[in-house]
Amino acid sequence: MKKKIDLTEHCVSSATLADGNMLTAKRDTVRLPDGSESYREYVLHPGAVVIVALLPNGHLVLERQFRYPLHQTFIELPAGKIDPNEDVLVTGKRELLEETGYIADDWVKLGIQHPCIGYSNEVIHIYLATGLTAGQHALDDGEFLEVFDVSFDACLEMVLSGEITDSKTITALFLAEKYLAQQHG
Amino acid sequence: MKKKIDLTEHCVSSATLADGNMLTAKRDTVRLPDGSESYREYVLHPGAVVIVALLPNGHLVLERQFRYPLHQTFIELPAGKIDPNEDVLVTGKRELLEETGYIADDWVKLGIQHPCIGYSNEVIHIYLATGLTAGQHALDDGEFLEVFDVSFDACLEMVLSGEITDSKTITALFLAEKYLAQQHG
Repeated sequence: MKKKIDLTEHCVSSATLADGNMLTAKRDTVRLPDGSESYREYVLHPGAVVIVALLPNGHLVLERQFRYPLHQTFIELPAGKIDPNEDVLVTGKRELLEETGYIADDWVKLGIQHPCIGYSNEVIHIYLATGLTAGQHALDDGEFLEVFDVSFDACLEMVLSGEITDSKTITALFLAEKYLAQQHG
Repeated sequence: MKKKIDLTEHCVSSATLADGNMLTAKRDTVRLPDGSESYREYVLHPGAVVIVALLPNGHLVLERQFRYPLHQTFIELPAGKIDPNEDVLVTGKRELLEETGYIADDWVKLGIQHPCIGYSNEVIHIYLATGLTAGQHALDDGEFLEVFDVSFDACLEMVLSGEITDSKTITALFLAEKYLAQQHG
């Protein structure tokens, strides 16, 4: 690897492009590495947690959910936004319970991912949850989804066949597969 | 898997929340599956291409690039937006050349990914490019990045260590690893 050069872009000024109920967009004037000025537009996001929930029989808990921006139903791992000042592990436990009804005894942090570095500051924390027991889910208002489970191998096959295309889900599966192979290998 | 229920959300009306130079945000009124109305806010994106460029020595071509929304330098695979009416393979060849200076003889489509299904309609097409020859790169105005290469294994290790956290890169590596294992195995 070559010597690292300083690629930093510095904020000159920041303006709000849009302030929606769910989505805030910013437009910042920045100073580029060569001293010139440009603009950067991006979305503010509170961060999220995605959960690889592994049942005692080796199946993964998945969701089918309609995602309006793409007018399409997606198969995804359980995930949700971090509430203000909420600890990320608390978010993980809360979202897994709300969306799927499961409670997990054991939580391992597998890492983080950045889904959209070009135009969002979102970071997604990735957890592996095991020791699951089924309870009662409680969806947010306006949230509709279907919960099901498939074997880990079937889930990987759904990625290869293109049935699963959600990047946060594939990235979390990548880390979980390597982690579990290391644990069992 | 249970019987699939209809989770579709229907557009009632659509408004533009923000119309920036790079980023357009929409706010749609939607009818939910239970008949009630709600809002969905999201970003319009032209789509993109990410390239797993494999050198004759087995190394992958990577980039270091500063990403302003996160105020952080990221290690990523070469990628770029689709120009209006551009064929996605043409985008892949153009972006690989512009950003890294490489030309590839062989292109295989590995699939697609959706990086941000909650608030963007972006789709990223994933290509494996081999038969590389080095040329001269030509960055867009205001684009600053550093190109380097590492072995495939070292690249996977950078994912596991958390040095690579970009979801599009990890998702593309996941598909490339499986594809190459199948080819050689």
